[in-house]
Order: sequence, then C-alpha cells, then structure tokens
Amino acid sequence: QNQQNQQNTAQRILSGNINTKGVTVGGYGEITYNRPSGKNAELDVQRLVLLFGYKFDDRTQFVTEIEFEHVKEVYVEQAFLQYSLNDQVNLRAGLMLVPMGIINEYHEPTTFNGVERPSMDVAIVPTTWREIGIGVAGKSAAASLRYQLYVFNGFQSTLSDENGTIISGQLGGSSGLRGGRQKGIKSNFNNINFSGKLDYYGLPGLRLGLSGYFGRTQSPKDVEAVAGADIGISMIGLDARYAKQRFSVRGQFVRGALSDTESYNLATGKDLGSILQGYYLETGYNLLALQKKQQLIGFVRYEDYNTHASTAGNLVENDTYNRQEWTFGLSYLIANGAVVKADYQLKDNAANKQTNQLNFGIGVWF
Amino acid sequence: QNQQNQQNTAQRILSGNINTKGVTVGGYGEITYNRPSGKNAELDVQRLVLLFGYKFDDRTQFVTEIEFEHVKEVYVEQAFLQYSLNDQVNLRAGLMLVPMGIINEYHEPTTFNGVERPSMDVAIVPTTWREIGIGVAGKSAAASLRYQLYVFNGFQSTLSDENGTIISGQLGGSSGLRGGRQKGIKSNFNNINFSGKLDYYGLPGLRLGLSGYFGRTQSPKDVEAVAGADIGISMIGLDARYAKQRFSVRGQFVRGALSDTESYNLATGKDLGSILQGYYLETGYNLLALQKKQQLIGFVRYEDYNTHASTAGNLVENDTYNRQEWTFGLSYLIANGAVVKADYQLKDNAANKQTNQLNFGIGVWF
Amino acid sequence: QNQQNQQNTAQRILSGNINTKGVTVGGYGEITYNRPSGKNAELDVQRLVLLFGYKFDDRTQFVTEIEFEHVKEVYVEQAFLQYSLNDQVNLRAGLMLVPMGIINEYHEPTTFNGVERPSMDVAIVPTTWREIGIGVAGKSAAASLRYQLYVFNGFQSTLSDENGTIISGQLGGSSGLRGGRQKGIKSNFNNINFSGKLDYYGLPGLRLGLSGYFGRTQSPKDVEAVAGADIGISMIGLDARYAKQRFSVRGQFVRGALSDTESYNLATGKDLGSILQGYYLETGYNLLALQKKQQLIGFVRYEDYNTHASTAGNLVENDTYNRQEWTFGLSYLIANGAVVKADYQLKDNAANKQTNQLNFGIGVWF
Repeated sequence: QNQQNQQNTAQRILSGNINTKGVTVGGYGEITYNRPSGKNAELDVQRLVLLFGYKFDDRTQFVTEIEFEHVKEVYVEQAFLQYSLNDQVNLRAGLMLVPMGIINEYHEPTTFNGVERPSMDVAIVPTTWREIGIGVAGKSAAASLRYQLYVFNGFQSTLSDENGTIISGQLGGSSGLRGGRQKGIKSNFNNINFSGKLDYYGLPGLRLGLSGYFGRTQSPKDVEAVAGADIGISMIGLDARYAKQRFSVRGQFVRGALSDTESYNLATGKDLGSILQGYYLETGYNLLALQKKQQLIGFVRYEDYNTHASTAGNLVENDTYNRQEWTFGLSYLIANGAVVKADYQLKDNAANKQTNQLNFGIGVWF
Repeated sequence: QNQQNQQNTAQRILSGNINTKGVTVGGYGEITYNRPSGKNAELDVQRLVLLFGYKFDDRTQFVTEIEFEHVKEVYVEQAFLQYSLNDQVNLRAGLMLVPMGIINEYHEPTTFNGVERPSMDVAIVPTTWREIGIGVAGKSAAASLRYQLYVFNGFQSTLSDENGTIISGQLGGSSGLRGGRQKGIKSNFNNINFSGKLDYYGLPGLRLGLSGYFGRTQSPKDVEAVAGADIGISMIGLDARYAKQRFSVRGQFVRGALSDTESYNLATGKDLGSILQGYYLETGYNLLALQKKQQLIGFVRYEDYNTHASTAGNLVENDTYNRQEWTFGLSYLIANGAVVKADYQLKDNAANKQTNQLNFGIGVWF
Repeated sequence: QNQQNQQNTAQRILSGNINTKGVTVGGYGEITYNRPSGKNAELDVQRLVLLFGYKFDDRTQFVTEIEFEHVKEVYVEQAFLQYSLNDQVNLRAGLMLVPMGIINEYHEPTTFNGVERPSMDVAIVPTTWREIGIGVAGKSAAASLRYQLYVFNGFQSTLSDENGTIISGQLGGSSGLRGGRQKGIKSNFNNINFSGKLDYYGLPGLRLGLSGYFGRTQSPKDVEAVAGADIGISMIGLDARYAKQRFSVRGQFVRGALSDTESYNLATGKDLGSILQGYYLETGYNLLALQKKQQLIGFVRYEDYNTHASTAGNLVENDTYNRQEWTFGLSYLIANGAVVKADYQLKDNAANKQTNQLNFGIGVWF
C-alpha cells in the first residue's frame, strides 16, 4: 500500500511478482451503496473483474482483464501482448489502458480512497479509457523514469446513415469524450492518436506523472470529409502521489483542448465544450499504528472540474458543468487486498445546484 | 455425497477444504434435455457457473460466482467478503444467497436428485434468490448448530414513471415474488429485509433447517408512499435431509404470507396471492453396492405447492396455481462431481390440466 | 507447431498434457485489424476464449470454453463431459464442436495461417459450429486412426408464429446454414443428426481427415409437418495437413448437399442453394532457421467456394456466391503460443465484383 511503489493488476503480472509460469488468475471488484440526497439508495455490484495472465517465455507475455459490470454486462477490458526486448524496451499491442492521470491505470479499489472514483476521472478522463493500440513501455532505473508511448485508435465522434449524412454525435457537454469510447468493439479507425506518459519515482515516497494524448476522433467513412464529423484532441495531465509513514497525499490536473467543436456542435446538435479542465487534491492519514497489518485511513478530497471551461462559437458555457466536490471519508483496509469504505460527498456547481451523497463500499483485489 | 455433511461451493472454499492460499477456481454446470408432452424437446446449456475464491489472510476471504445461463447470459451470482472474528462469528457483506429451504443454498447439480430443481423452489422460493446484504454466520459445535443472520435488500415490487405513478408490477400470481428479484443490478433499496437460518446437525445422518425471511418490498422513491407500491413479506421454511447407507430422504415446507396484496393488485393489475405455500418429500435409494465409487440413485419426489393458497380482496383463487407433481427418476453419479440424470414428471393442478415431462441431464461440480 | 501432432485446446486437456488434477485454466484470443478496400479500418477484439477443464478421476473429465466475442458478447462454446471406457472408447455428451474440416476443431490462432479463418470455413462449414450432442471418440494406435461419432441436435431452419404458420427462415444463399446454428441456447430438437470424423496419422508429417454430417434441420412443433419447414443435409469433408521441416501444406474440400430447398425457399422467401461446395489449398514456408524458437512463416492460400454450386427449382444461381480468394501473408510466431499475423486478400467472384482486404492480427493460445 506504499503508494509510490504501487503496481496495478497488469503490472503485477508483467513484473512477475505473482508467479512466473503457467496461467495467473486474479481479480478485483467493488460492491457499492450510493444514496444521493432526495433519492432512494442504490445497491450495486458495480464491477467484478477477472484477470488472466500468461508468460509464454522470458520475453513474451499476455494479459487480459474481463469485466462484469452491474452484474450482467461483460467487457473485455484489457487484452494485450507484450514482447520484451529488454527491461528498457517492451513492445505492446492490443487492447490497453490509455495512460492519463492516476485512476485510469490504477483503479483497483484498494489503491484509491473513496467509494467512487474522483468525478473528474469520469467526466474529463473517461475512465476506464481503453482502446486498441500499439506501443512501447519501459523504465530507466538510472533516471528513475518509467515511460509509455502508444499509438491508439481514438474516440468515435459521430454516427452516419452510411450515405454521407451525420445522424448523431457521441460526445457532449456534461461528460465530454466519454460517450465516444470504442472499447475495442468492432471499432472504427481512420485517425491515429498518440498517447504517452512519463513517471518519475526518484525521490523516496514520491511519484510524479506527466501524461499526454494527441489526435483526432474517428468518423464513419462516408462522412469523414463532412465538416464537424470529427474533432481534434490535445490532453495533458499532471499527477503526483506522495506517502510518508501514516500520511499520504495525491493530486492531479488534467486539461483537454478540443478543436473544431463549433462545427461539431453544429453538425450534431451537441454542446461539447472546447476546453475540459479539472484538478483534485486529496490527503489521507492512517489512524491505526503503523505496525498493524490493518489500516484505517481518514481522507479528504477536493475536486474542481469543468467540461465547459471554454466553449467555441455561440455555445454559452453551462454553469452546471462547472463542478466542485468535497469528499470526506474512511478507507478501512481489513486485509492486504480487502477494503471497506465509507464517505460523504458535497457536490456543488457554479449554478448552485448542490447535492450530497452518502456512499458505502466493499472492495477486493487479489 | 453424504447429505448431512453437504457443503455448497462457497462453504467448501470458506472452510478451506480446497486450498488455503492463492486463487481458488471451481465451477458447476448443467446441460438439460426437457420434453414436455405435446411439445418439441429443448436442449440447453442451462447454466455454467465459475467460482473464484481468495483468502487474503486467516480472517478475510472473498467468494464470487459468475453464472453463464442459457449459453449467452451472464450474471455475477455471488460476491461477498467474509471477515472471521472466530469460528462462531463470521461477518459477511456483499451479494449473497438468501438462506431459505434447501435448493437456494445447495443447487450444485450433484447435490440434488432430478434434472430440474423442485418446482416450489422456483415459484415459492425464487431460486437462485440472491441480493446484496450484510450479516453474520457461524456455528456452535457444542450445540451442533449452524446459524446465519442477514439484513438484505429486498424484492422490487413496482416500477414507476418517475412522476409518482405506478406503471407496472413485478410480482404475480403464477410465480409469486420471482419477478421482483433485483440480483444486485443497480438495485433500488428503501426497505430493510431480515433473513435467517438455523441448521441442526446433531444426529448422525440428519440435518434440520429452519429459515425465516421478513420485510417489505422496494418501490421507486416517487411512488413509495402510494398505496399498493409495496407489500409485506413473512416467509418461513422447514427442511430436513437424512441419509443412512444406501437410503436417503429429504423434505421441505415453505409458507410465505404477503400483506397489502389487495392494494398491490389494484395498483398494478396483478393477481398476486396473499399466501404462497408448498412442500415436497423425496426419497432415494442407491442401487449400487456401497463400496462402489459410483452411485445409481433411484428416487421419487412428490410436490404440492400453491401460489394462491389464499388471496386477498376480490381476487379469486386460480386453481391452475394449485399444483401437484410426481417425479420418478435416476441419478447416476459416474464420479465424485459428475452426474447423469433422467426422470419423468407428472404435473397436475387443481384445474386438472395435466402435463408430463421427460428430462435428461448432465451435471458437473468441480 | 508440428501440424500433424496438433491438438486443440480440449484435446490438450483431455490428453492430460497440461496437468492431471485440479482445475486447468487456459485460453486463446485474437485481436484484428481489417481494412477492406474503400472502407475504414476496423479494430476488434474478435474473440477471447477462456478454457476450464477438470479431471474428476482417471475416467471422467469435463471441458468447457467460454467465449467473449467483440468485447461484450458471451457464449459458452463448449461444455461436455467425457467418460473413458478405455483409450479406444471415450463417451462424450454435452455442447461439442462438430468435426468437419480443419478449422472448426482447430481454430486456436497459432494453429492456422492468416488473420481470418478461411472464408469457406464461415460460409460452408459454419465455424464455430457447435451443438448439444452425445457420442463416442477414440483412437486405434495400431491403425493410426482417430475416430469421432456423434448424434447432434441440428440447425434450426424456420421460425413460426406458434399457430402453424412459418414466419421466417434462418438459412440463406450467401452463408448457407450459418444462421441456423442453435449453439445450445434453449435449442429446439425434433430431428436427429449424425456426425463423424476419421483421422489417419500413420505417415510421418501427414494427417488426413474424412468428415461426414447427415440429418435434417429442426423446425418448431407447430410447423414441423408443413412443407418447407425443414431441409435435409448431407455434408462430407476431406482434409489434409502435411509438414516437413520448414515446409507445410494443407487443404480441404467440403460438399454439402441439401434436399427440399425448393419448398424451403418457397415457404420462407429465402435463396438457399441445394449444393454448397468449396476447397482451399495453402502452403507455407518457415523463413527462419529450424533451430530457432521463433518461426516466420510466409504462406499463400487459394480458396474457391460456392454456396450456389447448384440450386433447386426456379432459383437462379447467384454468381456473387461463387467466390475465389487469394491470401498472401506472414505468420510470425514470436513464442510458442503467441503470433503476429499480416496478410493481403484478393477476393473475387463469378460476377467480377472484386474487393481486396489488408489484415493484421495478434493471436495467443495458452
């Protein structure tokens, strides 16, 4: 649980920390109770994810995650082959996580505080963000740097009638790019997107990340030349995690600049912003003695994010998309890999429509 | 196969009978042939269930079952975390089986006779009955008692238009509460339900069970104050299993008393009964010598169950819901964990509409 | 990768090559890039298959494959119990692959060249072709013969309104029997179908196969006596695989003769042919030295298949169903069980509508 040494499920397999031959089986899951003010509570098996890994030889590994969402939906969430030239250079291809911010790569429930993921990691970074791609990853121990560099298939921005007319848009004002994720499902590919991340782990307890994503969305062949069929994306992210003894802090800033949103909104009737931007800061403190195996972390998180940080053309910025959230909660790690969570959220926006929410959750990772 | 020592899949993992570290993988499945009189036969991979368990430490375990029904439907059927204070007191939370009667907790195909589950374990006990809950389970070796005590989310009885009008009911005359199961799928929670079971295993070969379930159904927030939106439930069950050498017998009685069904039926147009009641008796005999590893069990089962044992208000009892069934069959256990089944069923009701059905099945549990 | 010793996933488990007790976990998967001329490229996690096997005792085994197609569809693809009387006679029952040609039984991506399966193994042999059945399989080491003999549930040819009127047909001109596969999903069974295969492996490097499938399609009870509700099927297949050092060749011929297609087409408005016929020839050469663990196989395949090789009654043969394809490509086996593929296809038909397609793929089998 030392946060700067954190590995996610795929990394744990790829690094050989579990076992080095045969099929590795693992998984993680979250069962949640959410009660927004003025509504009934919802109980949900939000996700259960099974992981299968296989090491063909010293250089070649395969990792896949199969996710069961809300009890009855299934998604292959990751499925990629890694071929290692050496520790510094590992080629990867397949369905992979886009490295942007913290949560998209590190979303196992025992690795973050709060029953729900930070809200900006839903509306701005569309977690779990994954597409089919190819690239290279590795680390330089000398420079204390991990790097990732990928070419990905991108978001699908529009649907067409297959006769040259745009019939709908997949992107929107409230949750930005989220609706455009293709997830590797017979996905349309006509524009290359570039993604990369650099992680610095050279100072004890600290981990710093710099992410970038650049490209254009995908559109059906028959409308790809039509104005507003696709948009350009430049997204950068900064993140930091620091832990020392019973104290931990993490934060993240992400800014996405979208081009051609005016013609996109005209063509599709959507209200997509031209700048999506947000940040959060979170600090936690383990209330139990350090030598105990269990941890009881009290934490507070503040988020500020806006999917209409700027808009193009005549589109008026919607104040309800300019959101601020406080989360106060507890993460009780009853064993290494098992957590019980509780928190209370105050959700506000610039239009002053406030809602509060009480959350409980159970999380496992094995 | 000694029935009073029977454990189900989750219990087998939790008791550490399989292995004590790492991920446990198991499963069970049923492939069935059903031929009702006057109809074509149906061949179906009725269910295939995968089980994954993990022991985090001596106190903390996670169990999940993922079910594939009819080849292409998927459900997370169980997913709960157990934290053991000691052998007597184990805290549990998550998606769990409601302990009521025999089959809902013990439905692995090698543990019961007959290709299909007893019909009352479909219409009265809505197997597989599972919801998200929290509770405590354990045993007292001194008193030869196992106990379970849970608080569960309950059945959803009505759907609304979200503006205060009930638009449909989920419960009904023929199969009672079955349509109201929420199964942990983004489930609505506004009334607590209590569930418990006591099992006595103090006499050699015998196992006695007493189950209870008490609470109210759930309804959408906007109609929860509307008359008929929800109903009250009090269900009790008695079950017994006895085995001695080549002979075995089991039986079960369940009675569910539902309140407010008159206003429920008025509000929804349904024909839900106010008493659901039934029982069955089954006896079997192993036709092979006891020292053989295989068993060939001939059995006969008689069921009598009625989802209109009583009705409220003007609702007339529907005689077709007053059902009697004879099942004659064979269970050929070709190995420990693998069974081939065959049976013939005579299904009658008080309206004298008789149908017969021929069934064959293959079952595995590993 | 020596092709005449090839085993598929189920055979590998059943033969005990992996492990002999406990649950076996394995899988295979394909991620594909397809770019037909004049269209956008499609990126897809085409399939990810998990395999679970269990050996109950020396005689009794269970094998199941669970397939995740296009990220979010799930199918139980195989689920059968095997009981071995001896090496020569193994009884099998459950959801099984129909043995016809090469690919339907051997479709793990490292066992065949080309990103996509041969097209005739889609349109004529409707891979992956599986139904619920029962039968016997085994081998005679003395005669160097493997045999399989099954009784299967067959294709569903028609749907009815349940009042004696046919409302649609499931079979058709372009892809023949493919739409009629019931896949074990609550499948209708009123006509027995017979299937068998004989494999000769007596000459070094060679494997010869002879397959047969004979029976009638299934139709709903209320129309089973109506003319055109079902058709008769006689299909035979011949296949050969030969490998010597860096050279390999394989080929396949399949001919399906369908009876009663005239009345079927009249009753359903379909254009089902009366003869489906095709063959392919493929040769490959490993461009790397034999002692290397990796292989880089250059290959070329020619296919000629026609789902209107003959038609009955007034149905005119559709020239677009008379198809010829060249595939030129590379299979780079980067490890035993991991392959990267690339190929280019020239697809022509007797109506001279040519399309070309560029394919890339990643395949794993573990």
